[in-house]
Parts: sequence; C-alpha cells; structure tokens
Amino acid sequence: MARVSQEHLDARRRQILDGAARCFARNGFHATSMQDVLREAGLSAGAVYRYFRSKEELVSAIAEGAFSGIREAFDDAARTTPPPTPDVLLGRVLRRVLAEQLPGGDDRAFARLVLQVWTETLRNEELRAILDEGYGGMRLAWAKLVDAYRDNGLMGADDVEADQVARTLIAAVQGFIAQQALFGDVSVEVLENGLRALMSMQLPEAR
Amino acid sequence: MARVSQEHLDARRRQILDGAARCFARNGFHATSMQDVLREAGLSAGAVYRYFRSKEELVSAIAEGAFSGIREAFDDAARTTPPPTPDVLLGRVLRRVLAEQLPGGDDRAFARLVLQVWTETLRNEELRAILDEGYGGMRLAWAKLVDAYRDNGLMGADDVEADQVARTLIAAVQGFIAQQALFGDVSVEVLENGLRALMSMQLPEAR
Repeated sequence: MARVSQEHLDARRRQILDGAARCFARNGFHATSMQDVLREAGLSAGAVYRYFRSKEELVSAIAEGAFSGIREAFDDAARTTPPPTPDVLLGRVLRRVLAEQLPGGDDRAFARLVLQVWTETLRNEELRAILDEGYGGMRLAWAKLVDAYRDNGLMGADDVEADQVARTLIAAVQGFIAQQALFGDVSVEVLENGLRALMSMQLPEAR
Repeated sequence: MARVSQEHLDARRRQILDGAARCFARNGFHATSMQDVLREAGLSAGAVYRYFRSKEELVSAIAEGAFSGIREAFDDAARTTPPPTPDVLLGRVLRRVLAEQLPGGDDRAFARLVLQVWTETLRNEELRAILDEGYGGMRLAWAKLVDAYRDNGLMGADDVEADQVARTLIAAVQGFIAQQALFGDVSVEVLENGLRALMSMQLPEAR
C-alpha cells in the first residue's frame, strides 16, 4: 500500500473543512448533514470520517483554523513601531482574512459562517472553549498594542484600561461581520473610515 | 360577553411576546415550539393563536418591538445641542434598552435573543425586511448626529461620509451584543470607555 504523504493528508483535511464551511454558510449548521458535507467536498464517507466524526468536530476545526489565521494576520500587521493606528491595522487584517478564508466563497458567505458559529457556541461547550481562547488571545494582543499607542503618545484617556479599548475594537469587527452577514453591503473601507473619523473627534473638556 | 379593553389586549400581547422571547433566548429559535411558548406565558393555545399564528410571527413582532424601543431611547438621548458624544450617547441608549427589554431576563439573555434573531434572519425574508428597515432608520439617525458633530466642530475627517461613521458605531454596538451573548461578561462601561479612548487618539499627520 502506498504511503500517504503529510501534504496529501493536510490537503484532504483542508478540502473537507472548506466543503463543510460552504455548507454551513449556505444552509446553516442545523440544516447541514454529514452527507451534505461529503457531497460538497466530493469525497466518500470513509475519507471524511477518517478525519472528522461529526458536524461538531467540523465546526470546531473551522473555528480553530479561523482564529489561527486571524492571529497570524494580526501579528504580521502589527509589526511596526509605532504600531499602525486601529483603522489601518483592522483594514489590513480584515482584507487578508476575508481573502484567505472560505476559498471559492465570498465575503458574505464567510460572515454568515461566523454568525452560525456564534449561535452554535450558545449550545456547544467545546466550541465555547475554542472561542474563549481565541477571543482571549485577541484581547491580549490588542491590549499590548494599546500600551504601545500610549508609549508613542498616540492615545490619551489614561484612565481607560487597555483591555476595554481592546474589547471595543474587537466589537467593531464583530459588528462589521454581523452587518456583512445580515445585509451583505459593507466594505472594509466603511470600518476604516468610520474608525478614522471617530479618532478625529474632540473630547469635550470636562468629563 | 364582557368587552375586552385595549389595555387588556395589549397586556396579553406583551405577556406572549415576553414568554416567547425568554424561550428563544434560552433554547434557541429552532428548539422552541409554540407549546413551549404557551407554557412559558401561562396561556392557552386559543389565547395565544388569537394574536400570533406561528413562531415566525412571534420573532418578527419581537424584532419590531426591539427596534422601536431602541429608536425611542436613541431619539431621547440625542436631544441636546451639541449632541452627546458617541460614548455618552451609546452608554445611555444601551443602559435603557437593556433595562427595558426582556423583563425578568438578564442582559445576557437579551443578547442571546438578538443573536438568535440575526441567525434566523439569514433564512426568513419577512424578518430580513424588518431588520433592513430598523437598521436603515438607525443609520439615518446616526448620520444626522455625525453632521451635528461636525457643525459643532467636534469631528474632523471631513472626507469620511457620515453614513460610514454611522455604520461603524452601529457595528460597535452589535459587537458588544455578540460579546455579551458569547461571553456574558461585558458591561456598558467597557464600550463607553473604549470609545472614549479611541476618540482621544492622535491621527498621524500624513495619511
């Protein structure tokens, strides 16, 4: 029997996950069966079950893959001194993530998939743990960046914890994804420009 | 037969919607049956079906009620000159909406309900129309406010369309709701402070 190379195994795994992601994005997690995934990936049951035994395992693997992609894009984009301002950084990360995720799909399909994952998380403990960890990592990464903004004199409001700024910026991205899923008409430029305009605001003197 | 007052009809309708909202928040839209709603509201099938014939009608009425509550809170909060900055305004609106919605529930239950509505919108055209209209109204209201910020010298970045700022602020709120649903540990203060810190940022000179 021929040895199967690691590249072949990885490519097969990728093929299954992409097929599952397209199914979940199109029909939702609950209306998708393992049969649908086999058909979409163009593989036999044996080939798929060797990698993933259930829809739950598929959705967990999709979420883990997305977080590692986002984290890599973020770390690459943040690697300058002083760090790029949030509008610039978020624009870079979102463009790269949208281009890399869900090949063959579109931005809206990716956003719909994220929304499916969020909803499924309300009922799935393993998925919740993956989201907790991914989100915790993003908060720490953004909080470090906020410290760097302050070290470089780019941000005031010293009474505000870095983590609160981190969560607000992550919220802006999550909301961008919700709008993309719901209305399908939001470009990365909207968020870049909107954040830039917010950054241009004058705080009233007395607070 | 005794005449039934309008107040009685309204109160009954409210009772049904609150019961349905609690069911959807707890178990999700798909796992909730009309029977569950009857039981939660403590009413007979006849009493409920007189008002709502299906889960779809219930979720539509819940979404419409939420938008009208949000819109009222927003209009009240925006009614000063110069208008409150986004951090202050969003804080006021969110606190009022969270206190009014889903009586007997908690903030997280409300957020989980919103997430259920978003996901259901991907498959339900009537609900999509309600969300389109509600969201469109919020965009217009925020865009007017952005114009007022500029008239009062509170915001620069004149090349940015008011609607883009509107969508970014709505995104921040949507993301706040996503975090509340997923992690349940985010307070309104996080968003207020985070936005204030963003507003304190210095834009690099050359862009």
